[in-house]
Amino acid sequence: MTPADEKGNFVRLVPEGDTREREVCAECGFIRYENPKVVAGSLVMQEGRILLCRRAIEPRIGFWTLPAGYMELGETAEDAARREAREEAEAEIVIERLFAVYSIPRIAQVQVMYLAHLKSPHVAPGIESQEVGFFDLDQIPWTELAFPSVRWAVTQLKTLEDTTTFAPFTNPPGERGDVV
Amino acid sequence: MTPADEKGNFVRLVPEGDTREREVCAECGFIRYENPKVVAGSLVMQEGRILLCRRAIEPRIGFWTLPAGYMELGETAEDAARREAREEAEAEIVIERLFAVYSIPRIAQVQVMYLAHLKSPHVAPGIESQEVGFFDLDQIPWTELAFPSVRWAVTQLKTLEDTTTFAPFTNPPGERGDVV
Repeated sequence: MTPADEKGNFVRLVPEGDTREREVCAECGFIRYENPKVVAGSLVMQEGRILLCRRAIEPRIGFWTLPAGYMELGETAEDAARREAREEAEAEIVIERLFAVYSIPRIAQVQVMYLAHLKSPHVAPGIESQEVGFFDLDQIPWTELAFPSVRWAVTQLKTLEDTTTFAPFTNPPGERGDVV
Repeated sequence: MTPADEKGNFVRLVPEGDTREREVCAECGFIRYENPKVVAGSLVMQEGRILLCRRAIEPRIGFWTLPAGYMELGETAEDAARREAREEAEAEIVIERLFAVYSIPRIAQVQVMYLAHLKSPHVAPGIESQEVGFFDLDQIPWTELAFPSVRWAVTQLKTLEDTTTFAPFTNPPGERGDVV
């Protein structure tokens, strides 16, 4: 997930006082501490259907995803989920509760997903989406879902039916999101 | 939370193609993307009592905390929670379920906390702890807790009593961890 426009001449070494190898810039001495990043998103429900966004950007352009993205400084995870729904689907959402926390070590992500509903009925594709729409849980485009965690979330959602109190979900047993 | 030994000569500007100001090194052009970091930890229970660790390091040296710390690359959040319990309390734990997700925007943290129990009875202070011990929920050292989120977790735990199915917790209403 390293942006292509990052610069610096990094070498791997254990900085003094540390116990792990880190990326250190050979030119200026800057230590690039790398930690997993938080993706926040939402399962936005409307009359039993779920909001999906068809991606207009790589990776997985043309595939369907949940509105979600990297959390920024100064936000709560809930703030980030609301912002992403606004950016990707022009959706103003109300967060109801935490739905799941997934870990994807391969890409160093922790995904925090919330159950939500629309504050107002308007949705439309944002700049990162080709189209957006609500899908009946029996008509999910399973083969066109963008990421394993989208599949996990929708699958777990289907197990709930009308339950409102449930333990939050985590990765399905044995799954680490290694295969797209 | 910037380590004291970070170097680089950073200026704030909006990189080409971005929409936010970022820290860019004036010497080598490296863009320091800053995102919130994940802290993973656990509420380790034994016969109705909870494991706390008295901190041997700043910040809040001498105060009691839950075993928790920064998630590293290649880990799941659960892996990180298990490692931190081992490092801070020499505790081998079994994670039972997700307990809470807290956001602390002031220090750009998302804290993922799990409910857990000991795999074997041994606990002892690790290098970052002065002492470790199990506390009855009626004998929590409230005025000596290290961080707001420790107080939130223990307070929310007390509301559960013998409930095993519960919605996961998030920040208490209106709280953002701004005051220690």
